[in-house]
Amino acid sequence: MTLVPIGRIRSTLRSLAEAPKQGREGAPDAWIDVDAAYSSALLGLNAGDEVIVLTWLDRADRAVLQVHPRGDPRNAIAGVFATRSPHRPNPIGLHRVRIREIADRQLLVGPLEAIDGTPVVDMKAVLNSDEA
Amino acid sequence: MTLVPIGRIRSTLRSLAEAPKQGREGAPDAWIDVDAAYSSALLGLNAGDEVIVLTWLDRADRAVLQVHPRGDPRNAIAGVFATRSPHRPNPIGLHRVRIREIADRQLLVGPLEAIDGTPVVDMKAVLNSDEA
Repeated sequence: MTLVPIGRIRSTLRSLAEAPKQGREGAPDAWIDVDAAYSSALLGLNAGDEVIVLTWLDRADRAVLQVHPRGDPRNAIAGVFATRSPHRPNPIGLHRVRIREIADRQLLVGPLEAIDGTPVVDMKAVLNSDEA
Repeated sequence: MTLVPIGRIRSTLRSLAEAPKQGREGAPDAWIDVDAAYSSALLGLNAGDEVIVLTWLDRADRAVLQVHPRGDPRNAIAGVFATRSPHRPNPIGLHRVRIREIADRQLLVGPLEAIDGTPVVDMKAVLNSDEA
């Protein structure tokens, strides 16, 4: 169960301190630079589409099993599987974003809270069943 | 970027041939048996909650970059990143399910199209931003 990066995030967010916890909390748009080896897997994606991006949150602490949600000690402690904490045994980030622009194998998407250099491991079409 | 299984699916679906393509296409409820090492990460999950389950689709072909969506040759060929094909460079399955019942570190969830024995790699709370 080894992941390969299929691309990387190129963002103005350079540190965790700058990054909001979720895309819709003021995150900027960011580029996904898809590796040349995977460019044919982009066929059919278009500007305006929504897509689910999976990232590898390489700064996360994989040993953490319980957190105060949103890092706020006023929130009751919870298991990481009941939260969206980046700290978890397998730190896969899940980001629903809109594609703003596609230039060859570079996609401008947003809003996206992942920081510059974050590996991207997958992109998926959005289904109705992802919603209600 | 190595994933560890945090549990496994226990399902009446024993083969890909039996499994619908998506949970809402008639999939049954199934159990997630969470490994003892991760049981404390379940704190705060309750029957009735919705949760996003990430699986490792170990039967997938990671070399596939384009498919006919839903395996139907009448559908125009598309890059896997524009689809929900299990075949993709990093075959992570994304399943939004409802928790029916929790018995210690076993969760009955559904509907779930993953087959018996599929490794589970993560569970996450559902956010509003996963929706519209």
